[in-house]
Order: sequence, then C-alpha cells, then structure tokens
Amino acid sequence: MSKKIIKGGWIATASDFFQGDILIEGEKIVQIGGNIVDPDAEIIDASGKYVFPGGIDPHTHLDMPFNNTVTDDDWETGTIAAAFGGTTTIIDFALTAGESKLANAVEKWHKKAEGKAVVDYGFHLMIHDLNDETEKELPILLEKEGISSIKVFMAYAKEFQASDRTLFKAFKIGKETGVVVMVHCENGSVIDELVEEARRKGHTAPIYHALTRPPEVEGEATKRAIELAHIAGAKLYVVHVTCKEAVEEIIRAREKGYEVYGETCPPYLVLDQTALEKPGFEGAKYVWSPPLRPKSHQEPLWNALKAKQLQTIGSDMCSFNYNGKKRLGLNDFSKIPNGGPFIEDRFSVLFSEGVAKGRISITDFVDMIATSAAKIFNLYPQKGTIAVGSDADIVIFDPTVKRTISAETHHMNVDYNPFEGMEVTGEPVSVLLRGEFIIKDKEFVGKIGGGKYIHRSLAKEPKKETQIIN
Amino acid sequence: MSKKIIKGGWIATASDFFQGDILIEGEKIVQIGGNIVDPDAEIIDASGKYVFPGGIDPHTHLDMPFNNTVTDDDWETGTIAAAFGGTTTIIDFALTAGESKLANAVEKWHKKAEGKAVVDYGFHLMIHDLNDETEKELPILLEKEGISSIKVFMAYAKEFQASDRTLFKAFKIGKETGVVVMVHCENGSVIDELVEEARRKGHTAPIYHALTRPPEVEGEATKRAIELAHIAGAKLYVVHVTCKEAVEEIIRAREKGYEVYGETCPPYLVLDQTALEKPGFEGAKYVWSPPLRPKSHQEPLWNALKAKQLQTIGSDMCSFNYNGKKRLGLNDFSKIPNGGPFIEDRFSVLFSEGVAKGRISITDFVDMIATSAAKIFNLYPQKGTIAVGSDADIVIFDPTVKRTISAETHHMNVDYNPFEGMEVTGEPVSVLLRGEFIIKDKEFVGKIGGGKYIHRSLAKEPKKETQIIN
Amino acid sequence: MSKKIIKGGWIATASDFFQGDILIEGEKIVQIGGNIVDPDAEIIDASGKYVFPGGIDPHTHLDMPFNNTVTDDDWETGTIAAAFGGTTTIIDFALTAGESKLANAVEKWHKKAEGKAVVDYGFHLMIHDLNDETEKELPILLEKEGISSIKVFMAYAKEFQASDRTLFKAFKIGKETGVVVMVHCENGSVIDELVEEARRKGHTAPIYHALTRPPEVEGEATKRAIELAHIAGAKLYVVHVTCKEAVEEIIRAREKGYEVYGETCPPYLVLDQTALEKPGFEGAKYVWSPPLRPKSHQEPLWNALKAKQLQTIGSDMCSFNYNGKKRLGLNDFSKIPNGGPFIEDRFSVLFSEGVAKGRISITDFVDMIATSAAKIFNLYPQKGTIAVGSDADIVIFDPTVKRTISAETHHMNVDYNPFEGMEVTGEPVSVLLRGEFIIKDKEFVGKIGGGKYIHRSLAKEPKKETQIIN
Amino acid sequence: MSKKIIKGGWIATASDFFQGDILIEGEKIVQIGGNIVDPDAEIIDASGKYVFPGGIDPHTHLDMPFNNTVTDDDWETGTIAAAFGGTTTIIDFALTAGESKLANAVEKWHKKAEGKAVVDYGFHLMIHDLNDETEKELPILLEKEGISSIKVFMAYAKEFQASDRTLFKAFKIGKETGVVVMVHCENGSVIDELVEEARRKGHTAPIYHALTRPPEVEGEATKRAIELAHIAGAKLYVVHVTCKEAVEEIIRAREKGYEVYGETCPPYLVLDQTALEKPGFEGAKYVWSPPLRPKSHQEPLWNALKAKQLQTIGSDMCSFNYNGKKRLGLNDFSKIPNGGPFIEDRFSVLFSEGVAKGRISITDFVDMIATSAAKIFNLYPQKGTIAVGSDADIVIFDPTVKRTISAETHHMNVDYNPFEGMEVTGEPVSVLLRGEFIIKDKEFVGKIGGGKYIHRSLAKEPKKETQIIN
Repeated sequence: MSKKIIKGGWIATASDFFQGDILIEGEKIVQIGGNIVDPDAEIIDASGKYVFPGGIDPHTHLDMPFNNTVTDDDWETGTIAAAFGGTTTIIDFALTAGESKLANAVEKWHKKAEGKAVVDYGFHLMIHDLNDETEKELPILLEKEGISSIKVFMAYAKEFQASDRTLFKAFKIGKETGVVVMVHCENGSVIDELVEEARRKGHTAPIYHALTRPPEVEGEATKRAIELAHIAGAKLYVVHVTCKEAVEEIIRAREKGYEVYGETCPPYLVLDQTALEKPGFEGAKYVWSPPLRPKSHQEPLWNALKAKQLQTIGSDMCSFNYNGKKRLGLNDFSKIPNGGPFIEDRFSVLFSEGVAKGRISITDFVDMIATSAAKIFNLYPQKGTIAVGSDADIVIFDPTVKRTISAETHHMNVDYNPFEGMEVTGEPVSVLLRGEFIIKDKEFVGKIGGGKYIHRSLAKEPKKETQIIN
Repeated sequence: MSKKIIKGGWIATASDFFQGDILIEGEKIVQIGGNIVDPDAEIIDASGKYVFPGGIDPHTHLDMPFNNTVTDDDWETGTIAAAFGGTTTIIDFALTAGESKLANAVEKWHKKAEGKAVVDYGFHLMIHDLNDETEKELPILLEKEGISSIKVFMAYAKEFQASDRTLFKAFKIGKETGVVVMVHCENGSVIDELVEEARRKGHTAPIYHALTRPPEVEGEATKRAIELAHIAGAKLYVVHVTCKEAVEEIIRAREKGYEVYGETCPPYLVLDQTALEKPGFEGAKYVWSPPLRPKSHQEPLWNALKAKQLQTIGSDMCSFNYNGKKRLGLNDFSKIPNGGPFIEDRFSVLFSEGVAKGRISITDFVDMIATSAAKIFNLYPQKGTIAVGSDADIVIFDPTVKRTISAETHHMNVDYNPFEGMEVTGEPVSVLLRGEFIIKDKEFVGKIGGGKYIHRSLAKEPKKETQIIN
Repeated sequence: MSKKIIKGGWIATASDFFQGDILIEGEKIVQIGGNIVDPDAEIIDASGKYVFPGGIDPHTHLDMPFNNTVTDDDWETGTIAAAFGGTTTIIDFALTAGESKLANAVEKWHKKAEGKAVVDYGFHLMIHDLNDETEKELPILLEKEGISSIKVFMAYAKEFQASDRTLFKAFKIGKETGVVVMVHCENGSVIDELVEEARRKGHTAPIYHALTRPPEVEGEATKRAIELAHIAGAKLYVVHVTCKEAVEEIIRAREKGYEVYGETCPPYLVLDQTALEKPGFEGAKYVWSPPLRPKSHQEPLWNALKAKQLQTIGSDMCSFNYNGKKRLGLNDFSKIPNGGPFIEDRFSVLFSEGVAKGRISITDFVDMIATSAAKIFNLYPQKGTIAVGSDADIVIFDPTVKRTISAETHHMNVDYNPFEGMEVTGEPVSVLLRGEFIIKDKEFVGKIGGGKYIHRSLAKEPKKETQIIN
Repeated sequence: MSKKIIKGGWIATASDFFQGDILIEGEKIVQIGGNIVDPDAEIIDASGKYVFPGGIDPHTHLDMPFNNTVTDDDWETGTIAAAFGGTTTIIDFALTAGESKLANAVEKWHKKAEGKAVVDYGFHLMIHDLNDETEKELPILLEKEGISSIKVFMAYAKEFQASDRTLFKAFKIGKETGVVVMVHCENGSVIDELVEEARRKGHTAPIYHALTRPPEVEGEATKRAIELAHIAGAKLYVVHVTCKEAVEEIIRAREKGYEVYGETCPPYLVLDQTALEKPGFEGAKYVWSPPLRPKSHQEPLWNALKAKQLQTIGSDMCSFNYNGKKRLGLNDFSKIPNGGPFIEDRFSVLFSEGVAKGRISITDFVDMIATSAAKIFNLYPQKGTIAVGSDADIVIFDPTVKRTISAETHHMNVDYNPFEGMEVTGEPVSVLLRGEFIIKDKEFVGKIGGGKYIHRSLAKEPKKETQIIN
C-alpha cells in the first residue's frame, strides 16, 4: 500500500492542537507522531500549516429539483467546489416528495451522485408523508441503504411540508430505529398566508422574502419540533438555526436533558437581512430559507456556538444563478428559487470569522466543521477526525494567507457569491480523500466519480462506538 | 531515553476513541499508531483496556488548616490516593487568609507538597482581602510562580470570606492578568445568620448543616459572581456547583456570551441530602459545603454535564476522620469540619455513573475528568490529553471490572468513604506519570516526592495555544 | 321603577372591599353608599354577608353536540345551576363545524338558549375553517350579532380542529375587527397518533385519556398560538390553561408585551391526574380536555393567578352522565365524551380554595370570577362589577358557612360531581339578575327564559370604555 | 358635617370607570351614585373631568440630608408641589444612619413634617445596621409608630448601605412583624470600586454616574434581595426598578410564587441615559440612582407595568438645585448630589404617557398611582380608592388639556425640571384632602401643616381587610 507522511504541521482535532506528523497507509491514518520516519513514504511538507480532518458538510442540495427548476450545481461541480473548500464528505438530502416508494428516491439520488462525486457522501432521507406502506418500507430501507438520518420539512407547503402527524410519526420511527430526525423548522402555513398577503398588496421585491418569514415562525416551529421529538423520545437535529428565538428553545431543551442538536450556517453568522434590500433585484442573491435576519441575531448564534449549544455548521448548499434561475422571481419574490452557494466557503468563513477573530477555539472549530457531524450522523470514527484508524481525509490549511472571496475565483457553477468581497484569513492548500490528493497546491487533482457512498449504521442499539456520540 | 509502548488499548481523548498503540519516550508521548514497533521499547499490554489521559483534579485541599484543625490527608497520602484513582495532576489551593504577604502562602504550600507529592501539581492562589499592598504583589507573584488561577470565597466569614469589594477587585485583576477567577458561591452572611438561628433553637444534628445552607444561597451567590465577573470582564470558574439554581444562572450567562465555566463534584451527582439524616452522628460523614441537596437536583447537574454547560469535575478533596476530627461537631453541627474524601473515587464514580450508565459519552468523560481542566487552567497541552508532545500521564483502565467502593480498600488516610458500598464499573489498573509507572497492576510503585510543581503561563496575551481554550 | 336596597353587606369589587349599601333602580345599580335611605325601596338585608358582582363564566358548553351525542345540561338546567352557583352571565360557544354559513350556527345557538336561559348570555363564535366565503361573512356576522370573540380549536381533529392556516387567518381577522381570539391549545395531531398507539396496544382505561395528552402538547400549542397571534397582531385568550408548560409560555409572552390572556378552570387547581386512575370505570368522571395533570402543576397555576398572569376562571361546563353517555367509552377511553359539570361550583370552589385559604385576595377573586372576563369580552361596564350604572347582577354570599359539594344537592342535570365530598367555605345565598332575584335564600325564583342575549361591541376602534381593558 | 357633591365626572378606580356623583360628608366618601341630590351639599361640577382617588406617592425624600447637604424641597414646598400634582398622601423615609436609637430618627422626621405638610403622610423606617439593641427596639417602634414598612439600602456605602447580614435580619423581622421590606437594589461595593476607577482615570463628567452603575449591578442586587427575602419568608418591595435585568428577576420570582412587588418611577419610563451626556454640566440635572438607562430598557418597564409585574409608581422625589447643590459635583461626578424633582409630575407623566398613549388602561393607572401602594403599605382602605368609607382624597382631572412641563411653572423649590419641555395630556384641576380642597382650580388653597400623619397597622396577623392585599 502507498504511504504518505504529512510532516510538521499543526494538527488539530476537536480536542487537541499540536505539532506532528501523520503517517497514511492506503486510505487510512495509521500513525501520528512527533517525527515519523518511513523511507517508503511520500513526504508532504506541512510545516507552518494547520492540518485538519476533512470537513463534513451535513447539509447540501446538489442537483435538486425545486419549484419546477433545478439547482445549478450538480454532483460534479458541487463536490469539486466542496473539495476546494476543504470538505471531503457531504450528506445530501434524497427527496421523496411525489415518490410512491421511498426507495425510488434513494435510487435516483445514487444515480445523481455516482460517477460524479469527487468527495465521499451519504444521504439523509426526506420524509414527506407517512402512510401505512411507507411506514413499513422506511426502517427496512434505512437499514439496507445505511441511512441513519431522516429529514422532515415544516415549511414549503407545495413541495415538502409534512403534517404534524407525519412529523410525529417520523420521530417515533426515529426512536424505534435510532436514526436522528432532522427538521427544517419554519411554520409553512403562516408563511404561505403572509406571502399571499404580501402578493395581494403588490409587494414583489426580494426583501419580502424575509419579511414574510419572521423569526417567530422559526422559533415557534423549533419549539414544536422539540416537544414532539421529546414526546416520541427521538433524537432531534434542527437544521439551519438562524435566530435568537430558535436558539433559546434549543438551549432550554438541552437544559432539560432533551437530546437536541442544532446546526447553523455561515451566512447567518456574517450577513444580515439588509442584504435583501440591495438595489434592484440584487437582493435575490440572498434569498434562501430561513432568510437572513437582522444583525442582532448574529451574536446569539456565535454565543451558542461558543457555549456548544449549536454543534454543527452546514452549508445548506443550494445554488441558482443570479442571471438565470433566480430571475424566475423577478416580478414576484415568492418565485425566486430559494438557496445560495455555500459549499465552498463554509470551512474558510468559519475559520476566518471564528478562529482568526478569536470567537471560537481551534479545537471547537474542528468539532463544528467535522467531528460533531460525523458523530451525530454515524460517520464517526471513519470520518470526522484525525485519529489512528480513521480515513485519511485531511485538509492542509494555510492559516496566514489573506484572500478575498469572489465568484470570479470560486469553483461553484454559479455566477455570484453571497460573500463577494469578503476578506478571509486562511485557505485550504491541499486536500486528501482516503489518502489520495484531490486538491494539491490549490489545483484539483481528484477523480470525477472518485467519491464513495458511505453506508452508515443505524445505531438502533447503541454500540460502544455510539457512546461517543453525545 | 527509555521507551515504552502501551499496546492495543482503546485510547480515549476528549474527541476520539480508537484502538491503538502509544509510544512514550522519556516523559513524553511521541507517537500514536495502529501498530507501533520499536525493539527498544518496553511493551505494556493494554488490550481490552481503555487508555485515558491522566485525570486532572482541579480542586483539592491537602494538608489544609480549617477551623483550628487540619485535613487528615497530606500531600503524601492524598496524592497516593489520587494516583490509585487515576489522577496524575492536582491543583490545590494556597490559602492566604492571615498572611501579610501572599508570597508566604505560596511558600508554605510549596513546603507542604515538596518531597511528598507523588503526582504533579499546581496551586490556585486564594484571595482573602485585597489592599494596596496585596494588589501590587499579586500580579507579580502570579507571574513569578506560574499561577494562572485565583480563588475567592463568598462564604466562611470567619476564615475565608471576601467582601464584594475584594471579589470585584479580584475579577479586575483576572481581567488584567488573564488568570481565571474561581469562586466558592454561597452567601456566607445569610448562612451565618441561619446557623446562629439554628443554634439558638438548639438544633445540633448534622442535617442542620444542609438546612442552614439552602440552594438559594448558592444560586444567589452564583448570580452575583457571574455579574461581577462580567462587569469586570474576567473569566469566571464556579467551583462545586450543586443545584438547579446555580446551574440555571450559569446557563443563562453562557447564553449571553459570558465567559463562565462550572465544575461539579461526584457526591452531588450520586448522593443526596438524606445522607445527613442518617442515625446518630453518621450524617457528619457527609458534611461539606455546599451541602448535599435533595435528589431532584441531580438530574439538572447531569443534564448540564451532558449539554456541556458544566465543564469539569473536581473532587473538593478535604478529608477528616469520622472517628476523629469530625467529632469536633458532635454537639454542634456548625463545628463539624467541612469536607469529604473524594480524591480517589472522582474518576471511577464519574466513569461508572456517567459512561457505563450511558449518561455521557466516553469522549465527554475525558473532557470532564482531564482535558477541560487542563485547558481552563493552562496546563494544556502539557497535561490533559493523549497527544504527541504531551506528558505521558496515562491511565490504563479496566472498563469491565465490577467492584465496591469501601474505606477498607481505599488509600486515603481517612476512616470512612462517603461512597461506601457503592458498586462501580471500571477501575484504573496502571497509571503512568511522565512516562513512569506510579501505579502498576494496582500497586503503588511511584516515588514519594516524585510529583513536580507545574509552572503555568498566565496567558495575559492569548498565545496560539490558548486559543484552544474555549 | 322598582327599587331595592341591599343593605349592610361587605361589598367587593376587583379593587375594593368595604361595608355599604347598594341602591338598585329597575335593572341598574344607581347608588352605593354608607347608609342609603329610600322609603320606596325594598330592603334586602346583607349584613354579615359578602356582596359580589354576579359571576361571569366565559366558557360553557350547554346543549352541545359532541361525538354523536350531546351534553346532558341544556340552557335551562345549565343556567339554573349557574344561577345557584352565583353566575349571572355566561358566554357559550356557537359551534360552526359542518355549517356552510357561519350565521346558521349563531341562529341554532339562539334557538337553544331562547326561552330557556335564566341568566344573561353571549356567544363566542367557533371558527373551524376559513374559506373565501366565510372570511367575508365573518366580520359582518360578528358586528351584526355583537360577538366580540371567536374561538379556534387546535385539537379534536375529527370535529373541531382548525389548520394552522385557519388559525392564523383567525388571528388576522382578530386584528382587523378587534375581537379577541380564544384558542384551545393542544396539538391534536400528536394526540390522535398517541391515542391510536394506545388503542393498538389495548390500553382502554380512562387514565389513557391523560397519558395520551401530555402537558407538552399543551405547552407546544400554547407557544404556537402565542407566536401566531403576535405575528398577526391579535389579542389572544388561551382557554383552560392546565400546566406549568403553558403558564410559562404565557408569562414569557406577556413579559415581551404580547397581548395574551389566560384562563384556568377549578378542577385543574384542586384535582389531579390520579383521579383518572380510580378503580373500574370511575376515572371516566374526570375525562375532559386538556386532562387533569400531576399535582405538581397546581402550584404554578395558583402562582400565576396570584401574580395576575392568568386572568380568568372559566367552568368549561360540559356535562355527561356517568351512568349514561360517559359509558360510550366503557371499552375505549377515546370514546368517553369529554367534559365535566362545573358551571355551578366554579364560583364557590375558587372562593373557598382561593380566598378562604389565603391564596388570593378577595378583590383579585372578584377580578377572576367576573371583572376580567367582562372587560376582555366587552361585557364591561354593563356586567362584571358593582358600580353605578352597571346591571344589578349581584351575589349575596355567606362567607362563613361550611358545606360539602355533592351530586345529591347540586342542580346540574348530571348524576355525579367531580368535587363530590369536597368541603367548601362559603355559599351564594341570593342572586339578582338585572335587579330581580333569580335565587332567593337558596331557592330558584327566576323565570325560565328570563336571561337576555348580550349584544357586545367589537371594539374595533377602542372607545373610551375599552381603554379600561388591559 | 359639611357636605360636598362631586358631580357628573368620570370616576375611576383600580377596577371601574363610570360616570357618577360622589357625596362627601366631612372627611369621608359616603355615597357614590348616578345622580345624588342633597340640598345641604356644596356642588362641585366635574362634568367632562376624570375623578381619581388622590395619588399616593410611596417614595419621597423631603428635607433629607445627603452627603453633607440637604434636599432643596422640604415638607412644605414638597407637599405643596405634590398636591398640585394630584398626590394626597406621601410616604417618606425616616433615615436612621448614625442614630443610636431608631426612635430618634422617627422623632426627627415627625419634626420635619409637622406644621409643614399639606398632604397626609407616613414614614418608612430605614434600617442601616441591626445590632442586639436595635433588633429589640425595632418591632416595638414599628408598632408604636404605625410604621408597616422598612427600607434597606444595598448601595451608598458611606451613608446608608447595609451589610447582607443586616439585610437578611431585616427580612427576618419583616417575616415576624408582617411589615414589608423595601430595598434599594444596587451593589454598592461594585459601584464604589467603579467610581474610584473612573476618578483615577480622570473621568469627571456626569455621564460617568451612569457608566459606573451599570444595569448589571441592579440586576444582581435585585436577585440577591429576592432570594434573601424568600429564604426569610418576607414580603419584598423593590424600589425604583429601572432595567430589564431587574424586571426579569422580579417576574421570575413572582412566577415561583414569591411575594415580591416592584416600583418604577416616571423618569425611567420616558428619559434615557443620553440625558447625562448633555453638554457641559447639564447632565447633572439627571443624576440620581439608579441612573437613567439606555432607551432599550423602557419597553421592558412598560411591558411589566402592563402585565402587572410592577405594581407601583414612586417619584423618588429628591431635589437639588442645578445652580446650587448639584454644583458640588462640578469637577467630580461622584460628588453630584443624587436625586431629582419628581413629586409633582409623577401623576401627570404616567397618565399622559401611559393612559393617553394607550399603553395602560385607566383602571390600571389608578392602581399604579394610588391603590396598589395603599394596599401594600397598609393605607388601604382609608386611602387609595374612591369607595364608601374611604377618605375623601380626590383629584379632579382634566384629561383633554395639553400643557408643557417646565420649571417655570412647576411648584417644586428647584430651578429645573428633568421633564422640561415635555408635552403632556391632562392636568389635575382640583384636589381634595379628606373632604377639603387643597387645590382648587389650579390654586393652592390648603393649609400649611394641614397634612396628618397616618398610623398604619403592621398586619402581623392578617385581618379580613388585609386579605385584600395581594
């Protein structure tokens, strides 16, 4: 087996930060040491660099149909961008709305990914409606496909929204099978009513996207998901937490011992609602859901990260070209495809705004960007850390470089970047996936389709390893 | 330099849990690997065992004068017991009450420890009163002695209690120097009044110790310390959190972004106030401060640990013989010396009740028992983890053995054990301090006086390493 | 016009308590004085008695269809019992489920009441579904009928439950018209799922009624109603608050300045969930929704009343004979008609448990039993107080008598009383409705059908009088 | 006895608002009616006016020594201004600091008031230090003098501040005697340290008064007072609540059933901290304690009033001339005498900003301005309401007039008014004290020294009347 030594870098895990070498054999990390010598090994100089586990992005939508259109990044462009950004594993959502059999959705998603993905990946299974048949099919499918997480939407009535009944059933299945239930927490019914009211009044501009989805609809839905999960005894993972109202509910729940996890996303930490008020149609670049919030919501999110009450950072990657599909909503904000391109900058924005600005520690950064997601979604210990026996998914990161994020230089298949012009500190230089470079000195050197599907255990009965998951 | 390989154990850090080998050279960990081969190394078989970083006990009182008496464990018996229990570093409190110069206290404490300690150690400096002279002396002394933590008592009027003025000054010095300020949070003035009232009414039994120190005096003082620290801009560490009231204040503070840490202690997690009601004088065995609480307070403590709102476990080791000094309070509960013998069982009780019973993950266990304390008190990365470059302070732990805690078998110099009769799962088998066995196969093989004083940085200006501290 | 003087009683209002006389002329109170002399007036001796405004019960279900049956008290028996109990005005719910036109429901309810009611009354209009037609009809109907309050159910999927969309629309209409929106806060979808699960498992006993409707479903729904009302800008009135979880949400909302009111009911204050566990089928006597809670929920309710965070006491009168319709659920708890007979004892139980036991002041009692409801539901100043110009609806109450509540002596048309055997202090002796006795010395002397429908203003634009409403 | 009829006004109590007449005989209200005819009575036309009970100001400092000076309003000028403002009873603080016998203070205060006061008055007894003698003296003195409220300061170390020990003893005496314990909640020790720091740094401007007393010192002290009162079982009344932090603690306490009341003062509702930043020394006009807060604290105060979580409005009258004693602090903010002139505008500002602007109802206004204070401080039912048997203390108020508050037109003996230039709606036109005009058509017609000292019951054992007090 081929061997590599990553030499002399500052290695960071969710616990530790130290200078050392990493010996890789084949796909695995086999040794970590102060000065590893192996004549057979290729030496990769990491001196002056940080060495992180490959990022895990637990929240992507690649090649996803939405509102009669489809996202502009597919599994090739999207995962290449992920790789550039320091992410080596993604978990995407297999959407089941409209499928008579849930298995169909999984099959479709396998087809989307296969032969394209350049990073490893898994699927969360979206649950739209649970009837007698799908209730039976679900546990079997999860086991067979190695899918340890399901997703329910409380919004998007026309496409995805589940009833409270289905949501609660999903939690019961979560309890029975051990899978974690992810929930998009916004009250879609209220939003739909507010949207219709806005349209009736002739409000067409992008800012109405934010104004028709106030933080209260997120806070309410978060509380609802929390209590329903608690009654059912399920593990809950709240996706894309954006506001004080939702953070408070999560903290209160955890205080009571509820098993609740929260994810936030980079834009909520650094952008705010005024972006949707940019002149003309430019606000459309910032239309995704939940929407950006007033600036005052950023601090509660940072505080919650620092206090470990939110555990993960997802990208919620869902890209649409501004001079393209976003235009569908030119005359009606409610027709703007929801989503933004974040898969590439997730890692660097959190490092720069979090670690470089002193808001979070470097070990907590690793936890948020990789380890926690690996543990919550049963990728651990294969993924999510730098440890003996784990996959050699590694990011060599230059912590000193300053650069400016721009659509001109990014690798996503989309004509704008919401962080355009933002200066960040630090940059992934090289990235390895299971021991092989996919990014080398800022060039893509991976293999299209080289990413593997990760079959996850359901952890129905907690094994020793799953005790690790908090 | 001598070499050792700890072979085939399940290695746990605050982040990871995996099977592997550890190569030790001299005092340091130099390599961690899947299968380390070194013909020069002594092989220590750890197969089937857990391999933990040596425990760090941030809260001990050895050879401590209290109320005209002195604790029954000194630095020899106390640290030997610590070693048996899996603890390789302690931080003890240098008491300054009655000293004209703070340096005197430190000198005294060095004398107590030197030639006796079998594990490494540091000191927290207790602050009783800050006047013009001690205010000047303090920062210089901390720097010189490498003391990065000071301690203020809000209770024990006769001996230790500081005024709010001094407490606030201590926080200001915390801010200026970067040291963390530890506070014993109980309103001593209220307690003294309640004690006097109880005595006037002829209440002499041990249970009155608990009844005259209700949870509200702890909750109030915790809130006070939190706000004063916040106004001053200091890092606060609340010692021995026992109750819902205090936990709530800590969670609220962290939610607002305050830099507040909390410690709890094993007895509060597993024993309750009814212990003080045991027949005759037996309740005296359970007299320490803050006191044991009604059972309903245990769950909020566990929840807070699980949600990472409390970070550390201290022993608050402070032992007095039941058929000895505890008798001073035979006819008056207020004269019972406060304290209990916990240095030995801290590690095992948390493992058994926490990990073995599924309440906390094994990685969080390591964080609580070692890593967090190392980071908060600037022992990290020398201490508190299993990582390349760190001291080889290691516990080889049998996770399967069942045993019963008893004064008959413990190693503390005290004639009773508050956990007497409690069955625990797991036991430290061997313990290494800086690469040398101090416990081997459950026998003490260390050297009396072999423990070293650890000079800590004050981290006035955060260095790269201190960014690790969250 | 006929005149009466109520002489020498202790008169209580929501503000005051003093000894005095009340002069009634025709239907109205015209004078209150220390010693009123009027040779033309009939003298009613109230010395040694308390003189209260007639109770207002804002929550009754008389002659109500439910689950293919109908309540056992109609407008004659029910209002006679109300009168005996000290209540002179009720507001009943006109149910619209299944009606194509909302007006039909109001017409039906007028027919139920007319010629039968012995006390004055109004209607709340229940909203089941809002479509284009009913949305248009609603404001006109409310104005025409003088209905200033609408009611939405979040539970009872089969019969009453509204969607979130309808709930939110109702709040918007509340905002536009000024009517208060009453909400039954329980998550019906979760309940239905839990009920089905219980039935599948063969759980048939009455206690499963409580176990399938845990407090969390009430807390969740209360939070949801609060946030939706707040987004819409509507006044919210939460009916029958039973638990800590709901109380907390209401307090938090009011703290933020939301216009939220809460009602509780006597059984939740004095009975608890163990009643449903009585041997055999007896638990069915205590089946209503939300269900009785564990005893620990009583104190938060009393605290909230005392702190004026809950404002009113409704009876939620809804009676079914135990040896009758309750038997429908003999083999299946979910078929037990929901409801209990409370219209008669509401006033006395709150006086006895609240005032006589020192939990609430006598003026607050008046506020809870009459004045607050009058103000919230726009009956004030015609109803709800003893003031010049108000209707002479008066209760002469003996505060000293001890008696035992029993089905044998009550006046409701139902064969059991949930408070059976409970000793209470105080009893209504005589009751006047608009200046005429309906109860005199504990005998019914009113006229069947003598109660009048009260046409209420909608207070769309606050008038001087409505400034009184807090 | 002389008789008067106040005719045709809109009478407001804490419960009711209706048009009617009031018959006064001698000092008392003897009848309230729709149309009272009495040929012997003087007729006072109140048509188009509001008729309120005389305001009760529970928080004044007249002729009070402070920091080597004394307030500029004494009992003559101060109570005349009170009368003009609609206040007919004040409760002033008898200061005991420096007195060997508490009785001396009371005697002094009687001398200050006698022959000067034009409105009725009582005293709160301030407690500075409790030793064996004063502990014995206190209950006897309270009983003898009819003082049912004591006051403890947690700030002003040099003059008033009590230790926690004394504070807690005061609560115990509160419990034993039934008197309510009023507390000034600010952590004086922290403030003193912050003040010294500011002075060391050369910060002399008035704004440093606010910056050295941040809201956190109030929030902390409020929590402390609440918990100490709760432990002792005493009734607590928090004076001059100014900030979100304190409001939250009060709400939490009441939620738990604690007997806690809160008072706020007009300036905190309408002015903010920027006033202290006015050019030159003008900020000194706004120096009182606790200080004005950032504007964001106003809304929580209004919300708490509306939700009845704060019960009373005190003036905290404590006047010093700007071109006079305030100048003592020209070069050092900490020497500016603390206090402002508010006794006159308390009533009108709350009416205008509260009732006229729709924030609170007119009945709640009466409760806050008069009734609640009467009940809490045992002046009720003699004072605080318009009811048969109560003192005829009455304000005839024109609710329509617009006027501008100004030092040029006010009646306080002070050369500025903090509300200068503020336009208010409504004005007291005439004021009666015990049946006699003291203000008539905006002219003072009272008698210097005509105010009477009110001997209050201690309510040690709740009598029927005291049940009224919630």
